[in-house]
Amino acid sequence: MTKITLIEYSNEFFDEKNLTDSEAPAQYLPAKNNIWVNFDGITDQVKIEQICAIFNIHPLIIEDILSPDQRPKIEEFDDSILIIMKMLSFDPTTDEVITEHLSVLFGNNYVLSFQEDVEGDPFDTIRTRLRHNKGKLRSKGSDYLAYSLFDAIVDNYFIILEHIGDRIEILEDELLENPSTITIQKIHKLKNEMIGLKRTVWPLREIINSLKKTASPLVDDNTRIYISDLYDHTIQVIETVETYRDMISGMLDIYLSSISNKMNEVMKTLTIISTIFIPLTFIVGLYGMNFKYMPELSWKFGYPVVLLIMFTVAVYMVRKFIRKKWL
Amino acid sequence: MTKITLIEYSNEFFDEKNLTDSEAPAQYLPAKNNIWVNFDGITDQVKIEQICAIFNIHPLIIEDILSPDQRPKIEEFDDSILIIMKMLSFDPTTDEVITEHLSVLFGNNYVLSFQEDVEGDPFDTIRTRLRHNKGKLRSKGSDYLAYSLFDAIVDNYFIILEHIGDRIEILEDELLENPSTITIQKIHKLKNEMIGLKRTVWPLREIINSLKKTASPLVDDNTRIYISDLYDHTIQVIETVETYRDMISGMLDIYLSSISNKMNEVMKTLTIISTIFIPLTFIVGLYGMNFKYMPELSWKFGYPVVLLIMFTVAVYMVRKFIRKKWL
Amino acid sequence: MTKITLIEYSNEFFDEKNLTDSEAPAQYLPAKNNIWVNFDGITDQVKIEQICAIFNIHPLIIEDILSPDQRPKIEEFDDSILIIMKMLSFDPTTDEVITEHLSVLFGNNYVLSFQEDVEGDPFDTIRTRLRHNKGKLRSKGSDYLAYSLFDAIVDNYFIILEHIGDRIEILEDELLENPSTITIQKIHKLKNEMIGLKRTVWPLREIINSLKKTASPLVDDNTRIYISDLYDHTIQVIETVETYRDMISGMLDIYLSSISNKMNEVMKTLTIISTIFIPLTFIVGLYGMNFKYMPELSWKFGYPVVLLIMFTVAVYMVRKFIRKKWL
Amino acid sequence: MTKITLIEYSNEFFDEKNLTDSEAPAQYLPAKNNIWVNFDGITDQVKIEQICAIFNIHPLIIEDILSPDQRPKIEEFDDSILIIMKMLSFDPTTDEVITEHLSVLFGNNYVLSFQEDVEGDPFDTIRTRLRHNKGKLRSKGSDYLAYSLFDAIVDNYFIILEHIGDRIEILEDELLENPSTITIQKIHKLKNEMIGLKRTVWPLREIINSLKKTASPLVDDNTRIYISDLYDHTIQVIETVETYRDMISGMLDIYLSSISNKMNEVMKTLTIISTIFIPLTFIVGLYGMNFKYMPELSWKFGYPVVLLIMFTVAVYMVRKFIRKKWL
Amino acid sequence: MTKITLIEYSNEFFDEKNLTDSEAPAQYLPAKNNIWVNFDGITDQVKIEQICAIFNIHPLIIEDILSPDQRPKIEEFDDSILIIMKMLSFDPTTDEVITEHLSVLFGNNYVLSFQEDVEGDPFDTIRTRLRHNKGKLRSKGSDYLAYSLFDAIVDNYFIILEHIGDRIEILEDELLENPSTITIQKIHKLKNEMIGLKRTVWPLREIINSLKKTASPLVDDNTRIYISDLYDHTIQVIETVETYRDMISGMLDIYLSSISNKMNEVMKTLTIISTIFIPLTFIVGLYGMNFKYMPELSWKFGYPVVLLIMFTVAVYMVRKFIRKKWL
Repeated sequence: MTKITLIEYSNEFFDEKNLTDSEAPAQYLPAKNNIWVNFDGITDQVKIEQICAIFNIHPLIIEDILSPDQRPKIEEFDDSILIIMKMLSFDPTTDEVITEHLSVLFGNNYVLSFQEDVEGDPFDTIRTRLRHNKGKLRSKGSDYLAYSLFDAIVDNYFIILEHIGDRIEILEDELLENPSTITIQKIHKLKNEMIGLKRTVWPLREIINSLKKTASPLVDDNTRIYISDLYDHTIQVIETVETYRDMISGMLDIYLSSISNKMNEVMKTLTIISTIFIPLTFIVGLYGMNFKYMPELSWKFGYPVVLLIMFTVAVYMVRKFIRKKWL
Repeated sequence: MTKITLIEYSNEFFDEKNLTDSEAPAQYLPAKNNIWVNFDGITDQVKIEQICAIFNIHPLIIEDILSPDQRPKIEEFDDSILIIMKMLSFDPTTDEVITEHLSVLFGNNYVLSFQEDVEGDPFDTIRTRLRHNKGKLRSKGSDYLAYSLFDAIVDNYFIILEHIGDRIEILEDELLENPSTITIQKIHKLKNEMIGLKRTVWPLREIINSLKKTASPLVDDNTRIYISDLYDHTIQVIETVETYRDMISGMLDIYLSSISNKMNEVMKTLTIISTIFIPLTFIVGLYGMNFKYMPELSWKFGYPVVLLIMFTVAVYMVRKFIRKKWL
Repeated sequence: MTKITLIEYSNEFFDEKNLTDSEAPAQYLPAKNNIWVNFDGITDQVKIEQICAIFNIHPLIIEDILSPDQRPKIEEFDDSILIIMKMLSFDPTTDEVITEHLSVLFGNNYVLSFQEDVEGDPFDTIRTRLRHNKGKLRSKGSDYLAYSLFDAIVDNYFIILEHIGDRIEILEDELLENPSTITIQKIHKLKNEMIGLKRTVWPLREIINSLKKTASPLVDDNTRIYISDLYDHTIQVIETVETYRDMISGMLDIYLSSISNKMNEVMKTLTIISTIFIPLTFIVGLYGMNFKYMPELSWKFGYPVVLLIMFTVAVYMVRKFIRKKWL
Repeated sequence: MTKITLIEYSNEFFDEKNLTDSEAPAQYLPAKNNIWVNFDGITDQVKIEQICAIFNIHPLIIEDILSPDQRPKIEEFDDSILIIMKMLSFDPTTDEVITEHLSVLFGNNYVLSFQEDVEGDPFDTIRTRLRHNKGKLRSKGSDYLAYSLFDAIVDNYFIILEHIGDRIEILEDELLENPSTITIQKIHKLKNEMIGLKRTVWPLREIINSLKKTASPLVDDNTRIYISDLYDHTIQVIETVETYRDMISGMLDIYLSSISNKMNEVMKTLTIISTIFIPLTFIVGLYGMNFKYMPELSWKFGYPVVLLIMFTVAVYMVRKFIRKKWL
Repeated sequence: MTKITLIEYSNEFFDEKNLTDSEAPAQYLPAKNNIWVNFDGITDQVKIEQICAIFNIHPLIIEDILSPDQRPKIEEFDDSILIIMKMLSFDPTTDEVITEHLSVLFGNNYVLSFQEDVEGDPFDTIRTRLRHNKGKLRSKGSDYLAYSLFDAIVDNYFIILEHIGDRIEILEDELLENPSTITIQKIHKLKNEMIGLKRTVWPLREIINSLKKTASPLVDDNTRIYISDLYDHTIQVIETVETYRDMISGMLDIYLSSISNKMNEVMKTLTIISTIFIPLTFIVGLYGMNFKYMPELSWKFGYPVVLLIMFTVAVYMVRKFIRKKWL
């Protein structure tokens, strides 16, 4: 299913409607006002192709828009710029990062945005600002709207990263206090998530940078300052991902050393007990032998003397362990 | 053995035949229509050299075409472009990736493709599209046909990568649930396969990029858009290989930590049993001694008292282990 | 709370006052003398925005100044240059490195500095030099004052790094002499601190370099020599951080090998004791059997012979261990 | 000792002689034919310096030629080009790679080659082709002869690499089937060899590339195609070395995990035996006590009941081990 | 203390004296002959500043000369070039590499060299060549003298590296034959030394390269050839350091695997002894029980039969261990 919403706006005008007819956008072209056509869901290929045809979008681009595996990229055309990014969100049930494919194509006075999933996006504040004419969104061109969409997405990355940062901290505490097999599985899962995240955010550096430096007249000089700021945020996201990766890879070493420490403790326990009692058991076994001629057995103080010897041996062993700091 | 197939086509014309005579292609030059000469197998060196002579191919290039170890590369000449790539497939019996050497040389209205193996290629859909004039293949030049061949190969990479991705997932489950010596061998094998894969796909970035940016008039501007799309796919293949490499190298750490965990468990079992029973065995050994004068032995409640002591010791030990979370 | 201090100075003139009125700086513009407005604390957003408005600072820049998470960067405008850095200090109670956000904006004859925290900065010597007209600070322009601020910060980095260097040395000794679980936690903490430090100092290379090479007339040629010197110091800071990172990552390997060594020692102790006494215990158990017909038991020299055999076995074992260098 | 061989050749002419007089080459200058002066051994410094003087070679270059530690490099002069490379061979007795220093200086119609060792080089086929006028060697200039020498060396690298590849495969099998302390020493040796090999082949990329792109008129355009092919081979050598390095570093992980696995097996054996028999030994010890009042001892079925209990305990343990997959 | 030596030389003239008066060099300016002023020790700051004033050296440069922590660098001025390097030597008592700060400033006909330590430098051969007019040192300009100093330092690096190479080889033998805790400490120390060495030599690549390519008229074209040769040596030093680093990091893996191997051996010994004797001890314990009704005890062949059973069990175990290759 694909839900299509059209917002037409200018400084004085605002209109929002759901499109059912795929030919509808055509009437807005050439437009007096700016329009934003948002697609929730990219399964209704036919409809999307029809609308894209109105905007003269090359079939290869449509293919990119429709394939969720397409990596983030920027493509500049004469009359429009396409940017493909990934939106991130959390699945509250599994605590996993979900990646959603998003394509934004903007031209002179239109923005088309194609979202992979039908539900949920981080654009609600943008819609509110448009509806109630807050900020300068309505007085600016389509490039500023496009920027606002990207900015909302990158801002959302920070929320995701903060959440992951919290998970790392919790894991770190768990690691130092009570590491278990589940801890290592969590670290492994986190590591793989970071590999995925890296793939998502890494290309943004280049994308936003070339948007900032584009020679295209579609991007206004005033907007460039904002894009430059967005670029900064992007770098910060990338650096945070790298920092997290460094931290997670350090956790593995800690885990391995903590397992070794635990094993050391186990072995020490075994060794102390064994080393004390095995010689003693030998001694008691000695006097448990049934030889007819064992003079010690009939000595009056044989038993207490043997007890004393064993006590001395045990004390000697314990002191040695204390000196070795095993106890 | 080398099987040679010639396809001659234009928008209105299509002809397909097996060549037995190595001089045959000469009659098509200078050609009115486009021709595609495909070689299955590169063992029949003489024939290949004869045909290459018709197209004025330099002996060094022929050498590259004939040597399966040649790494992927692009070479631009005045009247033709040579691209060497590797085709991948799965050996269903051993589940191993098989690499096949492929050289494609295309000029103004001809494409020559040299495949290392006699059987199997991913070009069947291209042949069908040519035969039945589907898509725009027949209305376009030889550069578009060459692009289509590369595209088919890169698309095939994704299938291979998906298969490997599945194997990684299965291995990951095996790793977390029931790791064994075979698991590590599988990881090792996968790792070496990824090293090989990297060598195969890494040069493609540069090759496709320079094809995209070539100044050669052999590549039409319309085709460039498609090559740009192909470049995108190539990057995606490379990134996926890198991601897999990262994931596999993470698996090794997990494996090592899981072995350590298992050893920990084994050691704990040993330690618990030993630590409880070794002192008890000492006590029972003590009263197994044969001294004449051991007053406890003749006490009426000697036996139950010793039993009680041993029970107390055992309970104390068990509680200690529980407190240490070893039990 | 935000404390604002204004210093007005020229070669002949010096005045220092606390600003309570946010409009106050306006009267100094256009200024005859140089002014330095320092903000301790960035919580009083309204006041800061008012003052920034006087200097025509773009809202996005104000946002950067106010957000402590903003990474270090340089931004050049027509009439001013903004540099964002981090100041480092030690929390004496936890021995942790504290990062403080600092933004410095300087124009033709003014310097604005915004410090995240209300208390403490490394600028006291600069204030003294201004008050008492020491050095050439008062006879130079605002660019030299800005340089002096950066220089004070980078100089302070060296103090922090020296402190960390000391901690590394102490840890290294601890590691070689008496490693414990706490050692690994300290290493881990240090490692994460270095990851943070790297993020703080790494961008400085680029920032100071582009300040050095800026085409802006705001930076005097004489000042450039000093900035070039500052650049040198920055490189040295970065190299030291890298060296420390290398050293810390080496410590982990040492730790792991030292744990393994300890375990080896424990295991050797257990093995030596067990290997000597378990066979002996078997022998004494043998002659503790109650078979009616055991001829050895009634031999006159049975007991001494068995003692001798056991002694021989023990000596043999001990010699073997000595040969294996386990003892 | 230094053996000097001079070959004078043109398409119609061929002459080969051993030089005893160091002044001899002078008579060939200015030469009508091409000459190739080959030095086997670089110990006769005086002779080499005399001949180099004839060719106006700078003393620093002579130093490079004479010092076997000199790394590979290219130097272009007005009238000659110097290339220093390493020749590789196998010492059949120790199976080690031997590195031999080679300097080739070629000018308009002469090639000088200086080999570190007196015996053996991979140039025999070149000599044969010159003698019998096979191929186009004699009809081409000195640049083509120089290329042929380099090509022979790089071709020889492949033989060395193949040999190393075989050793890696053998080691890998050994590693998976029966790893021992010798295996790790072999891996270590191989690793160090690869470090050395890397140093030998890595600079070639740059050397051959700058030879390919040189502006010097000494290199004919026709020869450039061959050098380009040589460059390809060089890249392939470098990639193979890198691949081997990756594979070898993977082997170490496998080795460590295989040791851990073995230890696991050892520990399991110990634990199973101990866990089964230690409790049983306690039980039999219990009834070996000599208390006067132990009612069980005089029960008629005391012995069989105890046997039954012990059997039950043993079976329970074994089943538990089977459930844990230790057996 | 700072010892100042002045050497004045030209092809025909040579004079060498110790300067006590810091104003002394002034009389040599403008000089007819070349002068070399060498400072042994940089503690006498006042004197150094006075002399530097004569040569118009910027205070920041003097600061660099006086601070031993200054990293290696090159600075070009209109009338002079400053190069800061580190000289290396061995402390024979601790076998540690000692780093000494050296600054060389050379102008049209003077060279100033500032050495951190009072005693010892690698320049004695240069002094001899000057005194006795050996080589072309006296007939060349100050740039050639400066080059000679750098060359002497880099040549000295090779001696240090050779010494380290010897230590690596010794360590490697120790590692394979008899690794101990001291071995790992030596490896660790060596590793940290290499980190320091890297910092010392890494910047040289850039320094010598920009000296080679400088546009300054101070460097004669004839000298450039020598600097180019020096650059070569520098690269070789850097490569050797990298190779050593690679080798040392490989040693750690070997060490860890050798510890594991040793532990394996220890565990095997324990397991073999325990696994053989624990079951036997159980059996002898069994017949040490005091049950009244144990028919086996009164059998005539009870004892020998039990001996036989135990012998069989032991043989079975031993054969199993042999089959597992544990014996």
